[in-house]
Amino acid sequence: MQHPLEEAGRSSRNIDPCVLVIFGATGDLTGRKLSPALYNLGREGMLPPNFACVGFARREKTHQQFREEVKSDISTYSRVKPIDEKFWTHFQEQFFYHQSDFDKDEGYAALATFLNQLDARFATRGNRVFYLSVQPKYFPIIIEKLKKHGLAYDIHQTTDKWSRVIIEKPFGHDSDSAAQLQKEISKHLDETQIYRIDHYLGKETVQNLLVFRFANSIFESLWNYKHIDHVQITVAEDIGIGTRGHFFEEEGLLRDIVQNHMMQLLSLVAMEPPVNLSATAIRDEKVKVLQSIRPWAAQDFETSVIRGQYGPGFINGEKVIGYRQEKDVAPSSNIETYLAMRLFIDNWRWAGVPFYLRGGKRLPKRGTEIAITFKDAPGVLFQQRGKRNDPNVLAMRIQPDEGISMKINCKVPGPSSPIQPVKMDFRYGSYFGQTPPEAYERLIWDCILGDSTLFARSDEVAQSWHILTPVLEEWARKKPQDFPNYASGTWGPKAADEMIGKDGRAWRIL
Amino acid sequence: MQHPLEEAGRSSRNIDPCVLVIFGATGDLTGRKLSPALYNLGREGMLPPNFACVGFARREKTHQQFREEVKSDISTYSRVKPIDEKFWTHFQEQFFYHQSDFDKDEGYAALATFLNQLDARFATRGNRVFYLSVQPKYFPIIIEKLKKHGLAYDIHQTTDKWSRVIIEKPFGHDSDSAAQLQKEISKHLDETQIYRIDHYLGKETVQNLLVFRFANSIFESLWNYKHIDHVQITVAEDIGIGTRGHFFEEEGLLRDIVQNHMMQLLSLVAMEPPVNLSATAIRDEKVKVLQSIRPWAAQDFETSVIRGQYGPGFINGEKVIGYRQEKDVAPSSNIETYLAMRLFIDNWRWAGVPFYLRGGKRLPKRGTEIAITFKDAPGVLFQQRGKRNDPNVLAMRIQPDEGISMKINCKVPGPSSPIQPVKMDFRYGSYFGQTPPEAYERLIWDCILGDSTLFARSDEVAQSWHILTPVLEEWARKKPQDFPNYASGTWGPKAADEMIGKDGRAWRIL
Repeated sequence: MQHPLEEAGRSSRNIDPCVLVIFGATGDLTGRKLSPALYNLGREGMLPPNFACVGFARREKTHQQFREEVKSDISTYSRVKPIDEKFWTHFQEQFFYHQSDFDKDEGYAALATFLNQLDARFATRGNRVFYLSVQPKYFPIIIEKLKKHGLAYDIHQTTDKWSRVIIEKPFGHDSDSAAQLQKEISKHLDETQIYRIDHYLGKETVQNLLVFRFANSIFESLWNYKHIDHVQITVAEDIGIGTRGHFFEEEGLLRDIVQNHMMQLLSLVAMEPPVNLSATAIRDEKVKVLQSIRPWAAQDFETSVIRGQYGPGFINGEKVIGYRQEKDVAPSSNIETYLAMRLFIDNWRWAGVPFYLRGGKRLPKRGTEIAITFKDAPGVLFQQRGKRNDPNVLAMRIQPDEGISMKINCKVPGPSSPIQPVKMDFRYGSYFGQTPPEAYERLIWDCILGDSTLFARSDEVAQSWHILTPVLEEWARKKPQDFPNYASGTWGPKAADEMIGKDGRAWRIL
Repeated sequence: MQHPLEEAGRSSRNIDPCVLVIFGATGDLTGRKLSPALYNLGREGMLPPNFACVGFARREKTHQQFREEVKSDISTYSRVKPIDEKFWTHFQEQFFYHQSDFDKDEGYAALATFLNQLDARFATRGNRVFYLSVQPKYFPIIIEKLKKHGLAYDIHQTTDKWSRVIIEKPFGHDSDSAAQLQKEISKHLDETQIYRIDHYLGKETVQNLLVFRFANSIFESLWNYKHIDHVQITVAEDIGIGTRGHFFEEEGLLRDIVQNHMMQLLSLVAMEPPVNLSATAIRDEKVKVLQSIRPWAAQDFETSVIRGQYGPGFINGEKVIGYRQEKDVAPSSNIETYLAMRLFIDNWRWAGVPFYLRGGKRLPKRGTEIAITFKDAPGVLFQQRGKRNDPNVLAMRIQPDEGISMKINCKVPGPSSPIQPVKMDFRYGSYFGQTPPEAYERLIWDCILGDSTLFARSDEVAQSWHILTPVLEEWARKKPQDFPNYASGTWGPKAADEMIGKDGRAWRIL
């Protein structure tokens, strides 16, 4: 079975022609991520030869204006610079703009006509990717209109061409709303047409997690409760809310990164070996992990989930304001900007192994990593006067400076030298000598190829909300009394240290 | 129990005062290794404050001449340069010369008187290290004379001071001669007074082997037949025989490096965890490994032991002569300069795991390493069109560029990229930013401290000869027909590749 992680044989030679329509084409994400991703895919010959891109948005704009905006975005945000003028001059002719409101039938009727023209001009054969880079409230109406105007096909009636829809996060804001959204879109689309994007899954180190686990014999042998003491997953940001105040006041950190990114990392690190590398087999195993997470007991909301909100403080020596002082944030806001929790996966592999997750804004440092701490060596032989040696730790850094390191104990050279932990290290950048591709490049390419492995399936999303909605409900019932409870530039509230400290463990220092 | 690998608490503060007497003080080893080792130990404050060194040799020489020779040797061979003149001016006053033949009683009587004078002058309290850096034929006579003249003490009668004898290799040249030598010296010395030096055991990476195995939980879990496919131990030299023709014609490669260094590496890599870190406990476990080596069957001498001798060839693009053309080598010599063999350790840990050993002169490259190749991951998931991924390999480099690396399979960055083996790496030099001390520094220091852990015990030596003497006997019976059978600058005879190739494996490329 063909698969993005298997790679061999996958190439743009057997990629279908298609038109990509970006809804919200004048938005922030399109500028920062989608346009640069398309440019890089194009420049590297990864896109189908027969390809066109249509920006769909509400503002009036000519094709030429849109192309100039795209060029400007690429020049600013592309990972490869400077821009290849010669390539762009040619490539830009495949970019078009279509003005319409998201809810007006005329706009979709006109789009249908326009896409048919593009099919004729670019031989794109009616294949469509619709990228919904819009506010979540527009997801249902856009999908409804796409179906109504024959842009999204019924997979049972139309088999000679395909249409796929990429849906940006967030997918719902709790169990009920996610279920409602799922219900609405599934009236019009089959699950195989829905690509719920989680850009973490497009990151190289995340994709490498499965390779690392299942293409090496040594790690899988150690990957269970017999050898592993605990797992820590950290998503730390040093930035604050910036201009996202409106959005964040609605969401909070749990919805912004825990429900999606962190639960995805947890699934990948904890899953059983899949039957094969198909999207179905992999996602079956991922969802089993989520299904095995121990449900919350009443006292867990006190002892195993810690929320926080940053106050004023210092980042890199510079004074920064607190969350409640940020633009578009209520002065008495109770939205969390930090979350730490302890989960257990009640299955045979992970019996008794705690998974500690923490994520936050305005922490001292940016860094995403998964760290596997192994059990101590037996307390004999190299214990120096009763002092224990550091346990072995396997750390997978997802950003920045992607790589893998293993902390091991070594003898310091010299005749009277102690044992000291050192790191065996592998860094993507210095090894392969190239900037890894952006997550969005990979994910757009996979969608055009029709590979949904690196996208979240509906049951994964539902299960993740199922785990986390009780936390949201408890938080809604019981307002935090101590917000802000950590200063910007510190590693979160004291309660988070106490939570892991009670277990005789400590958060890793990034 | 105090131990060189445990380290904590060991320091020169509790080291006994002593006099070190070097027999063969004008020899090559003294100049290249022992003098620089003493200088570095002294400069780093590792020697006892009350310390003197006496060179014992046959040539006439004044103390001052000897000191100048030592200084010259240090200037040339010390790992730290330039020489610290201020320290040396002071330190040299602890160096003395004593002229005598090795078999003349007068010389020993005079030595006894002289050492007593030094005791008075340096407060060295009668403690003695005798370093026998002489031809093996002198070992028995020197030890006999030391005992006769009261220089080597009877441990049962003398308890307020100590005497220890460091014996250089080779210890015998087969089972019988080693047993004979042991019998002669044990008339005069207790086993606790005998320090059979194997300088490989003083190397940092070799000492680190036990730390690596027993201070980390992850490796010991994998360290057995369930996870390991095979082990390769390589001692490769690019140099030829040089001026050692006389010596090498007597010895050959098996006696020169296999019986001692390589069997020591084998013992350390394969041993069970010792009860504690005492010299006794560690050496008990090491000897058990040697006892478990499967005895040779008749056909093994054809199929599992390969000898070779280098012919002319090229090293680094430079033409070099063959072994039979070297100085002091017989033109029809059948002495081996290469050896490859396959051993099995018939115990529970290593059932069915082959250990491949190879060592040789005039190979393309200098390098000593132990490589653990793990079993393949199950042949599902990431097999690219039937191509197997590389197995994981843990390589411990002993020289040059000491360090540890682990070969793992990773995903090459990019959307259509294959799986590729990469290395997680740890290098002593770049990590600790210092040249590791020379093996001789460590071993001399250990002997002064009375710690014999890193020295070979008599039963280890006997057992190693017990394994290898049948090979020597077979070789004596059956002269090689094809010598020279490998060109200088190649990786040894074809038969060695065939030996490992028949098992579906290959020698590692250093």
